[in-house]
Amino acid sequence: MKPTHIEHIGIAVKSLEESIPYYEKVLGLECYAVEEVKDQKVKTAFFMVGQTKLELLESTDPEGPIGKFIEKKGEGIHHIAFAVENVSGMLEHAAANGVQLIDKQPRRGAEGLDIAFIHPKSTFGVLTEFCMHPEK
Amino acid sequence: MKPTHIEHIGIAVKSLEESIPYYEKVLGLECYAVEEVKDQKVKTAFFMVGQTKLELLESTDPEGPIGKFIEKKGEGIHHIAFAVENVSGMLEHAAANGVQLIDKQPRRGAEGLDIAFIHPKSTFGVLTEFCMHPEK
Repeated sequence: MKPTHIEHIGIAVKSLEESIPYYEKVLGLECYAVEEVKDQKVKTAFFMVGQTKLELLESTDPEGPIGKFIEKKGEGIHHIAFAVENVSGMLEHAAANGVQLIDKQPRRGAEGLDIAFIHPKSTFGVLTEFCMHPEK
Repeated sequence: MKPTHIEHIGIAVKSLEESIPYYEKVLGLECYAVEEVKDQKVKTAFFMVGQTKLELLESTDPEGPIGKFIEKKGEGIHHIAFAVENVSGMLEHAAANGVQLIDKQPRRGAEGLDIAFIHPKSTFGVLTEFCMHPEK
């Protein structure tokens, strides 16, 4: 049971409107979707790079997780999401190895994926997400 | 001219010895190489996840870039490296779009790749690397 690839890299930005042109013009990537994830208090913009998405995250509420992250650390890379075949199984395996979970059960995330986060205190500072398509 | 995939994600850690077991036991990944990059004052450990490497970076000198990063921000994700077909071309294109370069020319990095960094001030907080195999 190991990740198949990096599903996405989450990047906290102050403004999608200001940052999307950098990804498009300088890196030559195409923004293929913009989506609001209300329970995470973010608007997201997606770009595909090989197997991996870049997910820009703009806070819609200063009290949301991205709002707080930017206030504390500034804009920048926020988390890594690993594509796995069994989110619940990865959570159980992580917990059995002493990893602190943020989500004890998978929940629905952006793009309709089943997702769960584990805590950066247990991962040497890397906020880590597991995700999979629910139909799998 | 756009990146083909995420070549690696650089992650600053205090100790390879302490963090490698997390990647191996919890995530199920295999550490396939450990390498010292003297001019960057780091020891690196590599794991493959699909197309992308995770590159753990342990500082060998508190005055080196990773030593300073950890002192300021703590352990965590340090940079994203995009695989490109022409590092010099990407640098020229970025500079022409007003991006501040860290490396004006490609230089030799870990695993013998030709690499160059652009400045997080120009990339909405994301320290960004371009890299390619020199034979290409």
